[in-house]
Amino acid sequence: MSHSYYERTTDLVSAVLENYEENAPFIPLGLDLLPDRDEVVEILHLLRELLFPGFIDHRALEARLTHYQIAHRIETIHMRLTVQVLKAFRNRKQKEAVAAGAIPMIDDAALEAEAKRKAMEFLELIPCIRTMLAMDVQAAYDGDPSARGTDEIVFSFPCIQAISIYRLAHELHTMDIPLIPRIMTEYAHSITGIDIHPGAQIGQHFFIDHGTGVVIGETTEIGNNVKLYQGVTLGALSLKAGQGLRGKKRHPTLKDNVVIYSGASILGGETVIGEGVTIGSNVFITKSVPDHTTVSLRVPDLLYKDAGTENFGQFAALNWEI
Amino acid sequence: MSHSYYERTTDLVSAVLENYEENAPFIPLGLDLLPDRDEVVEILHLLRELLFPGFIDHRALEARLTHYQIAHRIETIHMRLTVQVLKAFRNRKQKEAVAAGAIPMIDDAALEAEAKRKAMEFLELIPCIRTMLAMDVQAAYDGDPSARGTDEIVFSFPCIQAISIYRLAHELHTMDIPLIPRIMTEYAHSITGIDIHPGAQIGQHFFIDHGTGVVIGETTEIGNNVKLYQGVTLGALSLKAGQGLRGKKRHPTLKDNVVIYSGASILGGETVIGEGVTIGSNVFITKSVPDHTTVSLRVPDLLYKDAGTENFGQFAALNWEI
Amino acid sequence: MSHSYYERTTDLVSAVLENYEENAPFIPLGLDLLPDRDEVVEILHLLRELLFPGFIDHRALEARLTHYQIAHRIETIHMRLTVQVLKAFRNRKQKEAVAAGAIPMIDDAALEAEAKRKAMEFLELIPCIRTMLAMDVQAAYDGDPSARGTDEIVFSFPCIQAISIYRLAHELHTMDIPLIPRIMTEYAHSITGIDIHPGAQIGQHFFIDHGTGVVIGETTEIGNNVKLYQGVTLGALSLKAGQGLRGKKRHPTLKDNVVIYSGASILGGETVIGEGVTIGSNVFITKSVPDHTTVSLRVPDLLYKDAGTENFGQFAALNWEI
Repeated sequence: MSHSYYERTTDLVSAVLENYEENAPFIPLGLDLLPDRDEVVEILHLLRELLFPGFIDHRALEARLTHYQIAHRIETIHMRLTVQVLKAFRNRKQKEAVAAGAIPMIDDAALEAEAKRKAMEFLELIPCIRTMLAMDVQAAYDGDPSARGTDEIVFSFPCIQAISIYRLAHELHTMDIPLIPRIMTEYAHSITGIDIHPGAQIGQHFFIDHGTGVVIGETTEIGNNVKLYQGVTLGALSLKAGQGLRGKKRHPTLKDNVVIYSGASILGGETVIGEGVTIGSNVFITKSVPDHTTVSLRVPDLLYKDAGTENFGQFAALNWEI
Repeated sequence: MSHSYYERTTDLVSAVLENYEENAPFIPLGLDLLPDRDEVVEILHLLRELLFPGFIDHRALEARLTHYQIAHRIETIHMRLTVQVLKAFRNRKQKEAVAAGAIPMIDDAALEAEAKRKAMEFLELIPCIRTMLAMDVQAAYDGDPSARGTDEIVFSFPCIQAISIYRLAHELHTMDIPLIPRIMTEYAHSITGIDIHPGAQIGQHFFIDHGTGVVIGETTEIGNNVKLYQGVTLGALSLKAGQGLRGKKRHPTLKDNVVIYSGASILGGETVIGEGVTIGSNVFITKSVPDHTTVSLRVPDLLYKDAGTENFGQFAALNWEI
Repeated sequence: MSHSYYERTTDLVSAVLENYEENAPFIPLGLDLLPDRDEVVEILHLLRELLFPGFIDHRALEARLTHYQIAHRIETIHMRLTVQVLKAFRNRKQKEAVAAGAIPMIDDAALEAEAKRKAMEFLELIPCIRTMLAMDVQAAYDGDPSARGTDEIVFSFPCIQAISIYRLAHELHTMDIPLIPRIMTEYAHSITGIDIHPGAQIGQHFFIDHGTGVVIGETTEIGNNVKLYQGVTLGALSLKAGQGLRGKKRHPTLKDNVVIYSGASILGGETVIGEGVTIGSNVFITKSVPDHTTVSLRVPDLLYKDAGTENFGQFAALNWEI
């Protein structure tokens, strides 16, 4: 090619800028209209220091300093979270104005006051969230014989990372704060393989073993003392209607004391899994199940081939006693 | 043991060095023969800033500065990518020479010119890649009622991380650049649970919901408007022949408008999934499927046990209407 | 609300501190009673530099400096690992004392000497671990036709990340060092989706393809030349007895030359998978399998619906020849 690198770079810059204009939705319209994903993750880190002191920040609380330390942490989070919530609010206002064909007139003072107020209301929930998490840690300890102690669970169990981030994000979602809750739960999804939508409602003493591949959809409702294994999907039936389904109850309801073994899928907004139900591994279910029932697959026939005789035969049916 | 720590350390150093010599393949033979994985990930970050300005770098583009800003970004990526591509080229030359029993004579000037040229040709594809990604984002929005807007998707959806990295890596793979494309897609695998080989060919409007556990093999071909759910495998049949299969078409072909629900496996290089086909959850298939067909499992019988009567019974067959 | 933010923050601090007291298990009782998770991950990084020089640290070894370089690395790891092991030891002593109703009297000098000695004994295993990993890399190369070379495997294959971290953590676990091994393997789980308990015993030439969703439980025993695909579970049967099962053999035994295809689950401590056995995709098995047997699902009937006629029919049974 006869063009110099300088000329090619110049041409490429023009092509990129043209493409930015063609695909405008990906271009922020102003400086403060998008939250900062890395900052949201950093705030999550500070929140988890507040929830699990010593486990995340590697500093023990000194008795004579604790009050000051905690106050400093809370003020820091409040200030930084307010900034991100304000950006998310401004983004929503802007989009609403554009959708309505109006010129966006964003009242920053009022929005900022609201962001500050909501950030504080959220922080005031921290003691409640912490009480919930203490029960989740206990559920993990009771349910997993490989756990050597609750400190091992807080340190290393992916379910505690996923559930603690979900419980924080759920409160922000309930307060109708845009963008930030989903950034938080998708961060948890990234580090744990557990995908919980911030809109899901989850009761006390919740445990997920191993966890990779678990999906819990937006309108799922889960009672107390529920235990899930890896690869469980609590999902929607057909999504062909796409955005037309937004806000509708699309995901199942699980009552108290339900156990769902690995790889099972429970689908549909009208599906109710009754109290004390156990669902076996790999069960695929789209209908409700009455209380105190155990559901399992009729184990499919297995074929075996002996390397010597090359004969095919059939194993005796395997019955897994759950 | 009577030895001092000093003596034991000295002995250990000798043992480690001896082991390095025994297992030489893990030792780089010179300073510039291996790309730097962290630097490749950093370059990916810069590329994603170019693709999604404001979402990654948290800075809005200022109108009077954009031309300069974009030019600076492109030049930075060009320079840094050239260094890594050159290392990957030198590594290949070295291995080819060793395999041929020759003394490696690496012509750095020629290799460097080629690395620089290929890095520029790759960057010139950015506007096209961006147009493809705009369609992928739209497909995610159309397909997922939990999405509140395209900005939420760009910020937080793992499929957009995985697909954007795949689309970049695929172009480098097509240009026959070693090592770097696979480092990129395995980085995406690590943060999303979605494993797409850079050699796969994927059309427009591609959407993966949730994504954890998805595997898309090297010789897979995917048409336009295809939608996959979590845990879908597009894989090979038996790999007993190992390296003898390299380069052969081992993975399936999906025509346009195919939907594959969670946990399904489509295997084999001669397997063609026709236009408009829907494959139900957990289907395991190794044969082709004609156009406009829906394939689903005959749902296996479920057994239930009532906690009171301890009677076993059978649920009415569940029919999942896809 | 009439309260000022200052008053609300003060009230919140009190509520948080009260909650810390109520849920005391999450509060470290002293400064040196918890290992530092980030530091453990950093030590893992240094260990992987020692195992794979040039691949992680991006510096080639210079012949005249290598002895010094390696000695420096070993001394650094020894020092930093000793600190973390000491914290883990003190934590255990403290818990034992509290459980026994005694006042914790921790003899730091003795504990520190033990931590230092165990950290050195662990490091002296590095050459052996490296020899094992060289065989694992070869197994990946032999088993995966998409691999272009062993360097690509070391750079980018998640199984090598997961297995190298497991092999390190397993030795620490065998030395009865608390907390740190599980932090290491859960870090590997986070970045690879492969969940191997440090207590599992795994032989030579071990390969996991793709890997997302693989679970290998604490009391699993795996022979030589074993190959697993994504989504394989080597797990326990019912865990209803919870902590009462601790230390019991709950997970299966796999003899040499076993291949287990994607999504299969092998459960139970008395389940033995014989030499040379192949287990097909999605098989769910809780009984032992004799040597040299191939086990596969009788493929469930598939239903198809033609978009034109809306007739339902049935595919001819698909037989997947493994």
